[in-house]
Amino acid sequence: MKKSMSFLLLLAILIGPLKAADIENVKPVKNIILLIPDGTSLSTVSIARWLQWYNNPDMPNLAIDPYMCGTVRTFSSNAPIGDSAPTTSCYMTGIPSIAGYVSTHPVQDAANDILPIDSTRAYQPLVTVLEAAKMKYGKSTGLVFTCEFPHATPADCSAHSYNRGKYEWIAPQMAHNDLTVVIGGGTSLLPAESESYLRNNGYSVFKDNLKGMREFKGEKMWSLFSEKEMPYDIDRDTTATPSLEEMTRTAISKLSQNEKGFFLMVEGSKIDWAAHANDPMGMASDYLAFDRACGAALEFAKANGETAVIIVPDHGNSGISLGSSRCSNYSKLTKDQLFGQFAQYKLTSEGFQAMLNSRPASEVQNIFRTYAGFELNDDELKMLYNNKGYKNSPIPLEERAKGPELESLYSGSLSGFIAKLLTSKTCFGFTTGGHTGEEVFLAAYHPEGDVPMGVLTNVDLNHYMCALFEIKGELDEMSNQTFAKHTDVFKGYKYEIVPSTEKNGTPTLVVKSKKKQLTIKPFTNLIQTGKKGTETIKLNSVVVYVDKNNTFYLPSDLAKHL
Amino acid sequence: MKKSMSFLLLLAILIGPLKAADIENVKPVKNIILLIPDGTSLSTVSIARWLQWYNNPDMPNLAIDPYMCGTVRTFSSNAPIGDSAPTTSCYMTGIPSIAGYVSTHPVQDAANDILPIDSTRAYQPLVTVLEAAKMKYGKSTGLVFTCEFPHATPADCSAHSYNRGKYEWIAPQMAHNDLTVVIGGGTSLLPAESESYLRNNGYSVFKDNLKGMREFKGEKMWSLFSEKEMPYDIDRDTTATPSLEEMTRTAISKLSQNEKGFFLMVEGSKIDWAAHANDPMGMASDYLAFDRACGAALEFAKANGETAVIIVPDHGNSGISLGSSRCSNYSKLTKDQLFGQFAQYKLTSEGFQAMLNSRPASEVQNIFRTYAGFELNDDELKMLYNNKGYKNSPIPLEERAKGPELESLYSGSLSGFIAKLLTSKTCFGFTTGGHTGEEVFLAAYHPEGDVPMGVLTNVDLNHYMCALFEIKGELDEMSNQTFAKHTDVFKGYKYEIVPSTEKNGTPTLVVKSKKKQLTIKPFTNLIQTGKKGTETIKLNSVVVYVDKNNTFYLPSDLAKHL
Repeated sequence: MKKSMSFLLLLAILIGPLKAADIENVKPVKNIILLIPDGTSLSTVSIARWLQWYNNPDMPNLAIDPYMCGTVRTFSSNAPIGDSAPTTSCYMTGIPSIAGYVSTHPVQDAANDILPIDSTRAYQPLVTVLEAAKMKYGKSTGLVFTCEFPHATPADCSAHSYNRGKYEWIAPQMAHNDLTVVIGGGTSLLPAESESYLRNNGYSVFKDNLKGMREFKGEKMWSLFSEKEMPYDIDRDTTATPSLEEMTRTAISKLSQNEKGFFLMVEGSKIDWAAHANDPMGMASDYLAFDRACGAALEFAKANGETAVIIVPDHGNSGISLGSSRCSNYSKLTKDQLFGQFAQYKLTSEGFQAMLNSRPASEVQNIFRTYAGFELNDDELKMLYNNKGYKNSPIPLEERAKGPELESLYSGSLSGFIAKLLTSKTCFGFTTGGHTGEEVFLAAYHPEGDVPMGVLTNVDLNHYMCALFEIKGELDEMSNQTFAKHTDVFKGYKYEIVPSTEKNGTPTLVVKSKKKQLTIKPFTNLIQTGKKGTETIKLNSVVVYVDKNNTFYLPSDLAKHL
Repeated sequence: MKKSMSFLLLLAILIGPLKAADIENVKPVKNIILLIPDGTSLSTVSIARWLQWYNNPDMPNLAIDPYMCGTVRTFSSNAPIGDSAPTTSCYMTGIPSIAGYVSTHPVQDAANDILPIDSTRAYQPLVTVLEAAKMKYGKSTGLVFTCEFPHATPADCSAHSYNRGKYEWIAPQMAHNDLTVVIGGGTSLLPAESESYLRNNGYSVFKDNLKGMREFKGEKMWSLFSEKEMPYDIDRDTTATPSLEEMTRTAISKLSQNEKGFFLMVEGSKIDWAAHANDPMGMASDYLAFDRACGAALEFAKANGETAVIIVPDHGNSGISLGSSRCSNYSKLTKDQLFGQFAQYKLTSEGFQAMLNSRPASEVQNIFRTYAGFELNDDELKMLYNNKGYKNSPIPLEERAKGPELESLYSGSLSGFIAKLLTSKTCFGFTTGGHTGEEVFLAAYHPEGDVPMGVLTNVDLNHYMCALFEIKGELDEMSNQTFAKHTDVFKGYKYEIVPSTEKNGTPTLVVKSKKKQLTIKPFTNLIQTGKKGTETIKLNSVVVYVDKNNTFYLPSDLAKHL
């Protein structure tokens, strides 16, 4: 009892009157652009900035620099170090959640919860700021990212699942959520039904079609590149794959046609992936690509005058540092010693892997000389040849073995070996291949200067965005209206959950009144009705089914169609 | 030529019109309190905040939290990763310098300089914001810190040397710079002559005299504790050693008696030292002690209404992260798993070393149980007994040996072993025992809200402080007036540099006119004059001698006394 009281007090302090007044009394805006560099610790930004400056001394500053204004404490509902799914979920919904949860109310875990969690709402889909902007105001909505589209962060804005890995639940929700513009990865992940829905509802769908995207004059568009995630910026074929900056500019040009305004989320998705791989060039170069997208967003916002821009990572990653115990006396190391070798890397470790595996072994030194600025020494060459992931090694696979003296650079995968090799010639340190729990930076632009300062929580950041769109305190009620339990909505009606005939298929909810029948398949916004089930009701939100509690979440007024 | 042009452009951009307008057009204030947590990366702050919250859920926020407003890029003149001496020097003087340099103009190192450096000013002492506040306005000045007083950061405010280690040059400058209040470590380092000067000039000098300091009703005071540095906050005897918060409150109470205002620098000196030692509890607990001092400063500033507060580290250190590859699946680890063990540590590794070496070996498990919350297992006990720094080991010194199987926790010193042992039971990672080069956080309070936002350089931060005290662009001219070369000042006079008769003593400058003679010993503000050298001129600044160029730096108008 004492514990729960102190938790309530904690809540009061965390979102207490002083900060709440600052964050929630801001001048509303017409448009919000939220830019998330996934898994980006402050050191990653610093290293990227030094790299940019080293390559071009006329550019010592990043686009975000003038707008840095505070930090954000991001955490899962029951764990201090956040996962991508619940951290961006919290930005979008105001409620921290559990690792893997996509804009879904967490299950209470009282002994471990950081803030008090309402046990009665477990698994409830939570309306996001993006959804609220569309539902309350008819604003346009957009998502730009470089991962595959059903991945955690874009999903957090526009779908709901307690399992971020269930793309078959998430992808159709995203297609049926009537987003105005989607540009990112994942051509292979758009279900045929979803694509039909989009095409039947006025969307142009482009797949690996940069020219098509560039020439498209309309508004509603899905433009996907690569089967799953898009390549890292530094690795990409610029004739086939757009930059994050171009994707952002394209999205803004479509979204800004709506007089009612828009919400756009832009994710630098793979800064996080490079951090997991401990690949410093992947991190720095993908951050710089993200920063240029921030520049485009800020340029629009400043010209437009009705747009707020928020730039905030979801969590740290990798514990990267500029300085490492590998390098002695490094606080006297010069810029050339710290960045000279690093600046010569022209591919990520993944890019090296692809190139090494597509060219003969005779090309190895040429590849490293050209794309890394050094040649492998005998030990390094021996390690490469023995790496099990190197397809073109002159050593047959069965004869490859670890030399114990070379242990330090060995790794399971070829790209892992390359990442360690490239890092070994720098003074960057890593503590982990996973997330880190420090507060993340916050940068913001507001046309009237009403930016959030100080140290916020991920809950506070949601409250700030809600204040910007004048939906202060409304998300919970909107969630209850949009995602009510079918058992409550259809109380007094006959209803039945009909299992799918397909393996692992989702069930269908069938509700009957004397006159009508509703046939509700989850994860879309379409409901079959009419006496013969031939009419279609199109909702302004998606229906979500949760197997854990065998519940459909749908609009609280849906019974009106019966 | 091309390079130097791009460097000039770089300078123009770094301190370009947009930012300059923001930083330099602020409302002036009467008082500045600058608080520096030495060597504090953002992760250190985050870990400290989680620790505070874990111990007391009613306190989820730090004192600095509402005031976080940006970041600062700190660097040495010729190296991206900064050393404590040049980084705080740059805050105080506006000119980046070389590792080891204390508020002294760097030697040009053109190929490596980050910003253009004027080669003609090499070794010139540079007037600090503290000195300017005293000289231009007669403001009171104060220093509060926990290291020994001639250490880099306090020295940067009030002394000048190209070699931070030359305490014999630095200590007398600090005593003769007429600081109003000095509270910190180093009773053994105050030269007898300096102490006499202080006592003869109205100062009360307290040495390890907490009661004396507390009862002192006057204004001018030096209060030193411990022979060299003070103990870590968590290790200190609270009956003999004040907290940094108390020291800060005491200093403010003295300084605020001056109607002309004051400049106070407060350093959390040993957060940096604990970071060098990779001792996470030393870092977190000393940061929290520092944060409470920030709370005291902010409390005063808000009540006073004419005081700006700036809180900024000088550089990162240790690459600490919350999360480490040692711990698997840690992004699901609960608060108890992440902080439960850690929160039980009640001493730093240095504190454990002192306790273990002052009690019999039979007490070992009792000590760890009481102050660390665990008992050593057999391997750990074996490692402790074999550590060469453990005085009370039952194993004779000559018989101690490394067991190769125990290698990972061995370390040269006992405290080093303890730091690794304590860390091994947490999920904190470290990349280095040295400084790190990421940008540092910036928190600020200004009575009119004119805080610096965005990403600043260490140069920008100096310009902000100068704007607050209306000394914009004046420091260079003040340096030229205060620290002119004796060869220029006494041009046309007969002068001679007389070597010291003491070994390693500093020389004396003797200048003669027809009527008078000036006898100038460096590192004080006193000059002997009169026909027989029996009169004393007291300057408002110190005279500095630099052996590298055999030059005395002194007021440009000093010849008027001849």
